[in-house]
Order: sequence, then structure tokens, then C-alpha cells
Amino acid sequence: MSFKPDYIRPLDLRHGRVDMNHGAGGRASAQLIEELFVRELDNEFLRQGDDGARLPAPPPGTRLVMATDAHVISPLAFPGGDIGCLAVHGTINDVAMNGAVPLYLAASFVLEEGLPLAELRAIVASMAAAARAAGVPVVAGDTKVVEKGKGDGLFIATTGVGWVDERIHLSGAHARAGDVVLLSGPVGEHGVAVLSQRESLEFETRIESDTAALHGLVAAMLEALGPGAPGLRTLRDPTRGGLATTLNEIARQSGVGMLLHEAAIPVRAEVRGACELLGLDPLYVANEGKLVAVCAPERAPLLLDAMRAHARGRDAARIGVVTDDPLRFVQMRTLLGGRRVVDWLSGEPLPRIC
Amino acid sequence: MSFKPDYIRPLDLRHGRVDMNHGAGGRASAQLIEELFVRELDNEFLRQGDDGARLPAPPPGTRLVMATDAHVISPLAFPGGDIGCLAVHGTINDVAMNGAVPLYLAASFVLEEGLPLAELRAIVASMAAAARAAGVPVVAGDTKVVEKGKGDGLFIATTGVGWVDERIHLSGAHARAGDVVLLSGPVGEHGVAVLSQRESLEFETRIESDTAALHGLVAAMLEALGPGAPGLRTLRDPTRGGLATTLNEIARQSGVGMLLHEAAIPVRAEVRGACELLGLDPLYVANEGKLVAVCAPERAPLLLDAMRAHARGRDAARIGVVTDDPLRFVQMRTLLGGRRVVDWLSGEPLPRIC
Repeated sequence: MSFKPDYIRPLDLRHGRVDMNHGAGGRASAQLIEELFVRELDNEFLRQGDDGARLPAPPPGTRLVMATDAHVISPLAFPGGDIGCLAVHGTINDVAMNGAVPLYLAASFVLEEGLPLAELRAIVASMAAAARAAGVPVVAGDTKVVEKGKGDGLFIATTGVGWVDERIHLSGAHARAGDVVLLSGPVGEHGVAVLSQRESLEFETRIESDTAALHGLVAAMLEALGPGAPGLRTLRDPTRGGLATTLNEIARQSGVGMLLHEAAIPVRAEVRGACELLGLDPLYVANEGKLVAVCAPERAPLLLDAMRAHARGRDAARIGVVTDDPLRFVQMRTLLGGRRVVDWLSGEPLPRIC
Repeated sequence: MSFKPDYIRPLDLRHGRVDMNHGAGGRASAQLIEELFVRELDNEFLRQGDDGARLPAPPPGTRLVMATDAHVISPLAFPGGDIGCLAVHGTINDVAMNGAVPLYLAASFVLEEGLPLAELRAIVASMAAAARAAGVPVVAGDTKVVEKGKGDGLFIATTGVGWVDERIHLSGAHARAGDVVLLSGPVGEHGVAVLSQRESLEFETRIESDTAALHGLVAAMLEALGPGAPGLRTLRDPTRGGLATTLNEIARQSGVGMLLHEAAIPVRAEVRGACELLGLDPLYVANEGKLVAVCAPERAPLLLDAMRAHARGRDAARIGVVTDDPLRFVQMRTLLGGRRVVDWLSGEPLPRIC
């Protein structure tokens, strides 16, 4: 199927730019969708060309899971990725943190007039590659254009749908005193990578974002635990606000405290160095390819083994325990042996990090 | 559940403004979500407070339907609605045009620093009211903040999920020569309402947007046709680009032509007058509460009756037929008896209309 009458020239993907016509819903919109979005993201559902996609339903005995994320990261590309793959990974991960199998993505684009089409294509290609690698197609999309100065290149809102075995019910509200807190790998890489790009900082070692889809790791963890994933309470990816904020969210939702062991929290030396230089605490720096798991203590060894056996969890560690604390404080035993409260992020060290 | 330590003041919803902290993922983000978004949109799924919602799955014998829309309308409020209810109606309608029952919505917000919280709350309240009236809850959300001058008040991307009886398969590609084209009511109201607000025009009669959820009308139409909705080929809502563009899309997808009867296309006198004043053709002006149906000729009387019996289809009309035309032209027999081609929208008379 091609909508193009012979007298319409193909999009100039090398030198062209987004203009207001591309958002008007007429011929130029159809051309942008067909020659750029559908061509890059190509799959049977998107090719249907209707206003929504009609999709195989999840198997019986499951619950639907739905998650959404707006992506406004600046700059659009950074060491290790760009807004395109990030928009895929971030939403897949939100679905996966429910113990779910991500099935489908939908993506809405807000383009700023003047955005080079070559830049847009590179980002959509990165999105397509990430979606293919993850096995989760972008089945529906929408594109709008705003005037120059009313946006910032582009924003992408991604929504994911998946299914979870109805016997599995993970939630930030399910942690209880005595549970163990596991972390899948070293923290702070995404935030430091983005910030170094934004501020044109050079470190001795190039620090790359950890942006990655975690549904494979989650599947391996669930597999190890067996049907219903007994003993697993919570999965959460520590993105904006970093590990510290995520643990505070869980503590608040569950009405518990936590006690972390600083020595056990993996942070790469180069990230630690960059954070010192930038005046940041790596515990508050965003990650895009890590997860936190809270589980019953007797299940922790099994779960940790399963995590370490997976490429995305090789450096997984047991970083602390859940405590009985009506004040819901997250505390940390420091390297020097003291104890300090690890509070919520309250300032804003890193705007537009995802 | 409340996350708020005693020393945090409630949001100042009267005089406060969105600041960068509200997007940083820390305490200020949590407060904005809890005191504004969750309070207004309140439902059992959003209250779970996790990164995604866990939802009852659709019944057996169905297909999932997923649709997404970014909303960048300017101004944010207009006669008859605002970006909040529009974001709900638009996405419900995209799901419904698949013959589906809309079940759940997810909403991502991109807020511009400095947006008054009172304005944001009014929009979210309008969204909540529209979702409640439609019976389709907003079950997941996300909020990001961009610096002043990098956005335009707010953008909302809404994604909808629903289910459709697997025996029903509607598509813009299913129209065939001899089919009948039905329209649910008069065209052009949404675009004219937005434009009059934007340009501060005053007409003798206030023209309101037709923004409305159409899944009730669709359900009534499917009910009238019986199991599998035999004879119904296509449903489509003529939004951006108007009726003319939507019919051209269907003609292109199906590889057919169309012949419309100008005299049969309902346009309110005041909309016609405003369009003349503004130099617009009502056939190219956006609608947000109308649908086009293509069906087999023998089913048309039944379908038209069902549409007219529903509040959203009272003025439904048979506006033309599908023709055998390898050039896929949409043509119109004019009031004066001539014939003209109704081409795609190719200029851009109405930017940021939805």
C-alpha cells in the first residue's frame, strides 16, 4: 500500500526539517508517517494503518499491565543511547516491574518545528532497534508538531501493555520487616552519562548510560522462583531520583523502614569519581537498566543466584534489609560504621534526565 | 496512604506554579502526583501507586485494541471543552473506531515550568470528569517538567486500551465499491470553536466544540447489526484534516473512490457562516465528536436508524457511496449539480487543533 500520487516527492530525509504541515493531519502528515515512522518501526500491526491496533489478547489466567512514561531528556543523544531507545527501555521496564511480560508499545511524538528529519529518523531507528531487540513492537503511534520555541526538539510518550500471571502480585506496598533488598547492579551510570554530555565534561573513562530492557532479567528471576513467584514482594527500577528515592517510595508505600549497607551498594569507580567532581551522591542519580527487588529472606539466595546468572544482573548484590519503623526511614550503615538517614531527593540536581 | 511528613506543606493549588522540582522524581514530584493527579483522577488502579497498573484482563474471544494520541492544542481551553476532556475523548474514540469497548486510559503530561497549578488542576479535573462520564478510568500516568520556553503550558499524551469481539474486524482498508458512507452529524464545530477562541473572534452565535466520547454510539451501532457486525466495514473519526482527509485516507487504504453528495453533508448554519468568514472549507475542519461509517448498502438503513436513535448520532446522514476508482479520488456532486474532486488537506489552515 502506498498513498503517494506520482507528483509528490519523497521526504528529504537528509536535509529536510519538520514543519507545521507535518502535524496538520493531511498529506504531509501521512507522508511523514509512512516514509519515516512506519518504515523504521515496521511491523504487521502498524502496517494496518488504522487509528488503533487490533492485537492478539493475552492468555487466560492473566492480568493486563499498563504503564506510561513521557520522555523529555536533554540532550536527545548521550553516551550509550538516545531518547529513542530510552523511551522503549523505560516503558518496557515499568511493565516488567509488575512481573509482567511486555507485549506491545504505543508511542506519541511531539515534534518541534525545524527539527532536522535526519535527527528524527536516527531517533526513530534507535527506537525500532530497541523494540526489535526486546521483541516488543511499537504497534500504534501519533505525531504532533508545535511551533519553533514551543517545544524542545522532540518529546516521546511511550505506553506499554503486557500481561502477568494472575498468581503474581508485586507492589511497592508489599515489603515487610525482615525482607531482603537486592540490587541488580551498579548505580548512577545513566545520570552521569547524560550530565557529562550536557555539560561537555570529559572523564578519563567514557561513562555510558546503562539504558537497557530488563524484562529478560525479570523473566529469569520469576522462573527461578517458580509458579506465582512466592516470596517476591516488589520490583522497581530506580530511575529519576535514583536508588535512594525508589527505596523511600517503597518504604512509604509499605509502611516500613530500611537499613542499607553502604559497602554493599555497587558503584563503579569512574561513576564515583565523576559524582565527586560534580557534587552528586550516586544514590540519587538516575539508572535506566537496574532494578531493586524486595523478597522474603529465605528466597534471597535463590533470587540472587538467578540475577547473577543473567547478563543484566551479573553484579547483583544484597544491599540491605527491611525494618520495622513506623517513621518509614531509609537508613544506611556507612563505610565508616556510622548510621545516616537516606532521605528523599528534595532538591533537583539533574533535570530532564529521562 | 500518605507520604507526607508533617513538615511538608500542602501544594498551593491556588497561587502555586509548576517548577522543575515537580519533574525531578523526588518528594515534590510525589506530592504533585498525590495531591493533584491522584486526588482528581482517583480510582482503585491509580491508587495502587506502582509504576504500572495491574488490571482485569479482557474476556475470552476478544482482541486487544490499543491507540495513542498526543494532544498539543492551543489554547488549552476553548468553547465546549479543554485539552483535558479532549485528551480523554480523542483516545476513547480511536479505540472505539475499531468496534472496541474502551477499558483503560494512561496519560503522560509534559508540563512547562511556570504553569499555574490552578490551571493544571482545572484541566486534570476536566479529564477526570470526562473519564468518569465515559466509564473509562485513567489507570496509569507520568509527569515530566521542561524549562520555561521549552514547552507550551502542557501537552498530554493519552493511550487507550480496549477489547473487541474477535469476530469484528473493522479497517480503513475494508471499503468496497457499492458501500454506503454514513456521517454521524454536522461537521466543523471543533475546529471553528478552537479557532474563534484563538483569534478572539466573536460570532453571533457561540460555536462550541463537539468534543465527546463516541463509544456509546458505536456500541448502539454494533448492537443493531448483531453478532460480528456483518456489513460494517470501517469506522473512523474525522479529526485533524476533517471529513475530507478522513475519506481520502479510507479511499487510499481500500483502493476505492467515493462520490459524496454535498447537499447531504450536515453543516450547521453558524459553522458555515464562520467558515466563510475565515476562508475555510468545513470539510477540512476538525471534529472531535463525529464518526464516519462505511457499510454494505443493505445494512445502511438499519445502521442509520440506530445512529439516529442515539444522542450522538441524531443528525446522522447518508452522505455518499464508495465507487470503483483506481485513482482513488473522493469526488463530490455539488449543490449546483457539478462534480469536483475533494482532495487531501495539503496546506495547513489550522495548526494545533487537537
